[in-house]
Amino acid sequence: MASGAATAARGAAVPLALRLRERLDRLTKPRGSLGVLEDLAVQIGTVLESEQPRLRDPQMLVFAADHGIADDGVSAYPKAVTAQMLANYLRGGAAINVLARQHGLALSVVDAGVQGAAGLVGDGAGAASLLSRRIGDGTRNFRLEPAMSPRQCEAAIAAGRAIAAQRIEAGSNVLLLGEMGIGNTASAALLLHRLTDWPLEACVGRGTGVDDAGLRRKLARLAEAAARRPQPLVAEALLVEFGGFEIAMLVGTMLEAAARPCLIVVDGFTVSVAALLAERIAPGVVPHCVFSHRSAERAHDRLLSQLGVRPLLDLALRLGEGSGAALAWPLLCASTALLAEMASFESAGVSDRGD
Amino acid sequence: MASGAATAARGAAVPLALRLRERLDRLTKPRGSLGVLEDLAVQIGTVLESEQPRLRDPQMLVFAADHGIADDGVSAYPKAVTAQMLANYLRGGAAINVLARQHGLALSVVDAGVQGAAGLVGDGAGAASLLSRRIGDGTRNFRLEPAMSPRQCEAAIAAGRAIAAQRIEAGSNVLLLGEMGIGNTASAALLLHRLTDWPLEACVGRGTGVDDAGLRRKLARLAEAAARRPQPLVAEALLVEFGGFEIAMLVGTMLEAAARPCLIVVDGFTVSVAALLAERIAPGVVPHCVFSHRSAERAHDRLLSQLGVRPLLDLALRLGEGSGAALAWPLLCASTALLAEMASFESAGVSDRGD
Repeated sequence: MASGAATAARGAAVPLALRLRERLDRLTKPRGSLGVLEDLAVQIGTVLESEQPRLRDPQMLVFAADHGIADDGVSAYPKAVTAQMLANYLRGGAAINVLARQHGLALSVVDAGVQGAAGLVGDGAGAASLLSRRIGDGTRNFRLEPAMSPRQCEAAIAAGRAIAAQRIEAGSNVLLLGEMGIGNTASAALLLHRLTDWPLEACVGRGTGVDDAGLRRKLARLAEAAARRPQPLVAEALLVEFGGFEIAMLVGTMLEAAARPCLIVVDGFTVSVAALLAERIAPGVVPHCVFSHRSAERAHDRLLSQLGVRPLLDLALRLGEGSGAALAWPLLCASTALLAEMASFESAGVSDRGD
Repeated sequence: MASGAATAARGAAVPLALRLRERLDRLTKPRGSLGVLEDLAVQIGTVLESEQPRLRDPQMLVFAADHGIADDGVSAYPKAVTAQMLANYLRGGAAINVLARQHGLALSVVDAGVQGAAGLVGDGAGAASLLSRRIGDGTRNFRLEPAMSPRQCEAAIAAGRAIAAQRIEAGSNVLLLGEMGIGNTASAALLLHRLTDWPLEACVGRGTGVDDAGLRRKLARLAEAAARRPQPLVAEALLVEFGGFEIAMLVGTMLEAAARPCLIVVDGFTVSVAALLAERIAPGVVPHCVFSHRSAERAHDRLLSQLGVRPLLDLALRLGEGSGAALAWPLLCASTALLAEMASFESAGVSDRGD
């Protein structure tokens, strides 16, 4: 009785992260030998507020929208590909469909404003659900004018919040976030430049794979855009000037998830920029985020360092769609399963090193 | 007809690896955007000799044995832990049990010579099968005398070959290989030193986590062992002098698998040293190997570079047991699923970039 009471009192006094570490150290493995998976288990337990965290009903959400800046030829692909890929998700033929099926992830595609996509519906089994949350028919060209109105930005953030709230209230405690939109690495690069004051050249990369001439064009167009509104701006104002509907909606989704015991699995460069925006708006978002991978997009590595995080995978991916988040998902499952299911030194009769 | 015949003729003439790349390039994603997963799909298709490779009946094999050198205090754990962990595998409480269950991998533990383990049997559902292939009651202390006799070494290699042959003939085309044995990173480090002529200090690491004094002791004992038999030796002779039963059995398993259309998933440092030994004995083993992760063991990174390979994961693992191989398994499944299931630009009506 006395011992039990002491344990309970200690349980209340000892921080959860420390209790999770102690639990890991009792398992039949050399201390710390599961490396990053141990840190991940501590993070998941902390975010889900449990010594025995269980990931429930994982939701893969892919936010899609078009970008006016794509008309400037900043991408290797024509703008029409956004709507074509949205249709591909709904038929089940894209990479994220394959990965979501493999990993048992419920897949929803959010039309945040894909040009010409009004009226699209899903028709296939094993394919994505469609959430129509159209803020407009794509953003305006931010080289010439603000990408969106303040009202559109607010609506996009609110739509993201509502999606997260609905999924969490329906029982999920982990959202995996991806994006699709021709031209959106241009938007993300410019947002990053203005959020960090890093040189524009350090923020701009090849996206889906522009060639050298395309990269020079992308950089020149973004320099013009930045010069249109040179004064310092807060995160929301930057979204209005240079953002995308899917990026603003990602920010809203993260803000809502981070206000609850919910884990966020971040895909690549564009979603990481959304995480930085969300962190600026409401500090405390990043600790809820698992960064799934280091992408091949040039600025991603520096951004991850800036956020002080270590991504789980490093596979030179540059696809988006949430593909990296889906690929990292089994590592999250492994870390919680190891914490829950491994025998302890004591229960298994294995000699500990005794230090 | 003419076109079909031309395609067939081309199919025969174009190397399989190139056909796999062409297939990947037709899928609805920017070319190369799946990064390492595309290289992996090409490797798997090449090894399995198919444009549509399917991974069948994956077999996780954990080879366990004891090492006389452990009596010199080169590990953070006492020698008895090898048998205790073998029992843990058979009850289902170790990390590899959890990971094998999570990933649907058939798990077998091979007793290649664990001291005091004769007579152990498995008793639990969801736990490992036991293959008793005992070469002896652990190796002798190679600081004082050869670790094993040439006859024991041959028997271990033959036993590994037989296990691989049996699994492959029963329908598997992918073997995931792990190991366990207190003291075996000492053996692996010395083998690596003698195979490469790298300084002993560059080959020796902390294993399961020896402290600084333990590391100095490990290095000193291994220097004495190396000095006992200083002349150059071929791979088999090195195994006799400084090897372990589980390491020799791993070598045999790889030699057999690499002689067939079978993929080998290599776990960490010790299994990678076995791959180097197998490659020296019969060049052509490494192309069959997927290196699952870069471990925290100091020399592993250099060894992977020497082999010219890029590991899939980098999670600071230092557990062994095949844990890294199990964790990488979903990436192999993803690469083949993407190749098989994604829509092409043509079938999905998505505009390609046209270069």
